[in-house]
Amino acid sequence: MAQDKKLVESITSRDVDFAQWYTDVVKKAELTGYTSVKGCMVFKPAGYAIWENIRNELDRRFKETGVENVYLPMFIPESLLEKEKDHVEGFAPEVAWVTMGGLTQLQERMCVRPTSETLFCDLYQKDIHSYRDLPKVYNQWCSVVRWEKTTRPFLRSREFLWQEGHTAHATAEEAQERTIQMLHLYADFLEDFLAIPVVRGRKTDKEKFAGAEATYTIEALMHDGQALQSGTSHNFGDGFARAFGIQYTAKDNTLQYVHQTSWGMTTRLIGAIIMVHGDDSGLVLPPKVAPTQCVIVPIRQKAEGVMEKAEEIAAALKAAGIRVKIDDTDRSPGWKFADQEMRGFPMRIEIGPKDIENDVCVLVRRDNREKTEVRIEDAAQAAAALLEQEQKDMYERALAFREAHTYEAADYESFAEISRTKPGFIKAYWCGDVACEDKIKADLSVTSRCMPMNGSEAPEDAVCVCCGRKAKKLVYWGKAY
Amino acid sequence: MAQDKKLVESITSRDVDFAQWYTDVVKKAELTGYTSVKGCMVFKPAGYAIWENIRNELDRRFKETGVENVYLPMFIPESLLEKEKDHVEGFAPEVAWVTMGGLTQLQERMCVRPTSETLFCDLYQKDIHSYRDLPKVYNQWCSVVRWEKTTRPFLRSREFLWQEGHTAHATAEEAQERTIQMLHLYADFLEDFLAIPVVRGRKTDKEKFAGAEATYTIEALMHDGQALQSGTSHNFGDGFARAFGIQYTAKDNTLQYVHQTSWGMTTRLIGAIIMVHGDDSGLVLPPKVAPTQCVIVPIRQKAEGVMEKAEEIAAALKAAGIRVKIDDTDRSPGWKFADQEMRGFPMRIEIGPKDIENDVCVLVRRDNREKTEVRIEDAAQAAAALLEQEQKDMYERALAFREAHTYEAADYESFAEISRTKPGFIKAYWCGDVACEDKIKADLSVTSRCMPMNGSEAPEDAVCVCCGRKAKKLVYWGKAY
Repeated sequence: MAQDKKLVESITSRDVDFAQWYTDVVKKAELTGYTSVKGCMVFKPAGYAIWENIRNELDRRFKETGVENVYLPMFIPESLLEKEKDHVEGFAPEVAWVTMGGLTQLQERMCVRPTSETLFCDLYQKDIHSYRDLPKVYNQWCSVVRWEKTTRPFLRSREFLWQEGHTAHATAEEAQERTIQMLHLYADFLEDFLAIPVVRGRKTDKEKFAGAEATYTIEALMHDGQALQSGTSHNFGDGFARAFGIQYTAKDNTLQYVHQTSWGMTTRLIGAIIMVHGDDSGLVLPPKVAPTQCVIVPIRQKAEGVMEKAEEIAAALKAAGIRVKIDDTDRSPGWKFADQEMRGFPMRIEIGPKDIENDVCVLVRRDNREKTEVRIEDAAQAAAALLEQEQKDMYERALAFREAHTYEAADYESFAEISRTKPGFIKAYWCGDVACEDKIKADLSVTSRCMPMNGSEAPEDAVCVCCGRKAKKLVYWGKAY
Repeated sequence: MAQDKKLVESITSRDVDFAQWYTDVVKKAELTGYTSVKGCMVFKPAGYAIWENIRNELDRRFKETGVENVYLPMFIPESLLEKEKDHVEGFAPEVAWVTMGGLTQLQERMCVRPTSETLFCDLYQKDIHSYRDLPKVYNQWCSVVRWEKTTRPFLRSREFLWQEGHTAHATAEEAQERTIQMLHLYADFLEDFLAIPVVRGRKTDKEKFAGAEATYTIEALMHDGQALQSGTSHNFGDGFARAFGIQYTAKDNTLQYVHQTSWGMTTRLIGAIIMVHGDDSGLVLPPKVAPTQCVIVPIRQKAEGVMEKAEEIAAALKAAGIRVKIDDTDRSPGWKFADQEMRGFPMRIEIGPKDIENDVCVLVRRDNREKTEVRIEDAAQAAAALLEQEQKDMYERALAFREAHTYEAADYESFAEISRTKPGFIKAYWCGDVACEDKIKADLSVTSRCMPMNGSEAPEDAVCVCCGRKAKKLVYWGKAY
């Protein structure tokens, strides 16, 4: 019991110090580890397994839409990075530079990719000649490097894992269609697989990607009321194509520039899972993404028949497609319960001599700790149904939280007041002028998160929450990671 | 027909110029592409899909043996790389150095990982305290960088993809067991999945990994008679543990050093597939690793009912678990046949109006071009059986080739003669002295590939093929990639 207590006491309460709570969970659930490499993180098995599940499911969804995977070099020669003006200005200050290869000084230094638009353009310029070569719908899974000064596990580190899709199309319409298709694919993935509701929207020009014509985003709300940009999809128009000379011969024999898009999601999604679903006992993983969905805890495991029954239940769950483990370590059941809650396994099953006598076992959900006693032969079916319900409930709970923390402000005074006292999204009209965005950011540390996809046009009589002039757009504002 | 001819003529014959044939196949099968990044390659969809299949199958086999995946930083601070003396000497001359982060000169330069022993040691040193923390059986899938001067697609490039397993064990016995377990896992994978026979053996001290106590290898023979080291498994003993101070408290309360292993396979396996199985028409992919296993070619595809029948067959094959595509482009069937042979699809199915009239279709194997006419309703079953047979036949053919190109030499004169005139492996006894290895390499460009796992002990009367003194070991020698 002393051990149980110690385990539980060592987590900071989520509402007392959210940042410390996050750090505690990441460490105690053994998602990450440390090495001597400053600013870079280690993905330990429990953390990497979440990423594998995210990757496998996203990759499956990508391929259903015709995406093909490739792998391009991790280095970008400086002259290549410089070809698109806005792009290099956005990234050059935060890249890592390789200046020596072996014992030799390089003639031209190369950066480690912060993102690979320039490399894909270099490839497309060589490979695209005719309309027959289009579209190109490529993606790569890799790591990228951005030389951040302050870092936090999953949310901001010098190296992180991601996927980056890069496409080239014959027409502007087709490029726009792919941009929006991927945005919705991302949003559906978060809502369905990670149980995280998102606002789908477009970034203002101030917040868009370096080199993009338009950037679309999905924004999720964390438990502390801060927003997390969780995925972005960019339409480049023909800007990169002009900078890199990517042209094709159309069916009518004219020479045309291609239209391009790119879109990416990263390991910060793991941070989103933690910050949306976690509680004071630790991590809470949505069943669909959980590497282990159910842990069976034998009570008095040395008593006759207990381990056999545990294995029988495990086999039945496995046959039903549930990812299950038995915890047969020599810890006490109480210690195991606390440890498993910390690690966020969506369900545990308790089975002991008394249960076996009554031919029952007890299923306990992680999210609400609800206990359900079922006949042993019904365990697999009951577990599957409960996991499905848990996934839905987690989404609904997160959605209700977001709705309860989404405010509206009609004038600057109430906008400022909400931003200081009520963590969450603020919906407010905006004139379209970057000066108002700059002022809001300077005054309140609040940024425009997005103009929502559905109904961002301001009504006739709406005025800007900042300057009071005629408003153009409805904007979601918030403090953000 | 002009187009067909052009396609076929443009490949160099394998026996005329093997190196050029290889380059042609890699390019025409669209496995790789080029960018402006010197010495680094692009994996295009057809090439990357092969790697995905290799990765997925290997990863499945790893996990069955208890391997857990992790991800460690791509950078290694210079002081960390230098901790193990042999290791740094082996790698420092060929790494890429990052010296600037953003606009700032780094206080300590970092290399891009050429391999990650030092990082895993750094992590293990922090994470391993007690026998309870052992074993650690970690693996990561990533890319590594070695600053090669001359490069060839898949075989040698400045950046390549691989997996690297790193384990820590309580005892020397357990470490040795894991080293050998992974060697056999690799060998079985090549033989079963890639249809490539291998010699399993141990490297001589001259050829072992920098910092290892013992290196084990699998060696495959390419069609030009050169060997390709296809996977290695290293036992480090406690050398790295002593250099990095990785100690644990044993059950008897004594402080002990851990024993470590590492093991890796790389994208050069794709080069092996090409060079073992390819022919004058292009790539030949073993069915198990082929991203597309069967292509259906509709003959007179605009004739009534042809496309419907093609789709019916495709659906039946898909239901039988075969990865199938229909080629409904506007090329001629002859062009498609040549193009598909170039890309190495293991099977094609021809279906046209006349076939439909007779309720048949024609299955054509890629490896031997054998045609089999079957009833349409039997297509899926027949295709599955033929693909299985093709996989077996490809292995047997490669094995027969290797056996026909494995020679024995009892004295230096015949050894030298064989090495000059008969490409392949040479089995010959060796005294164990590095001076003989050096002489053989200098005279003949031949290196010791391995001492085979089964029966490398020299008999009493055997003498060294080089110096004539008493022999210690039987060695496979060869020219190698």
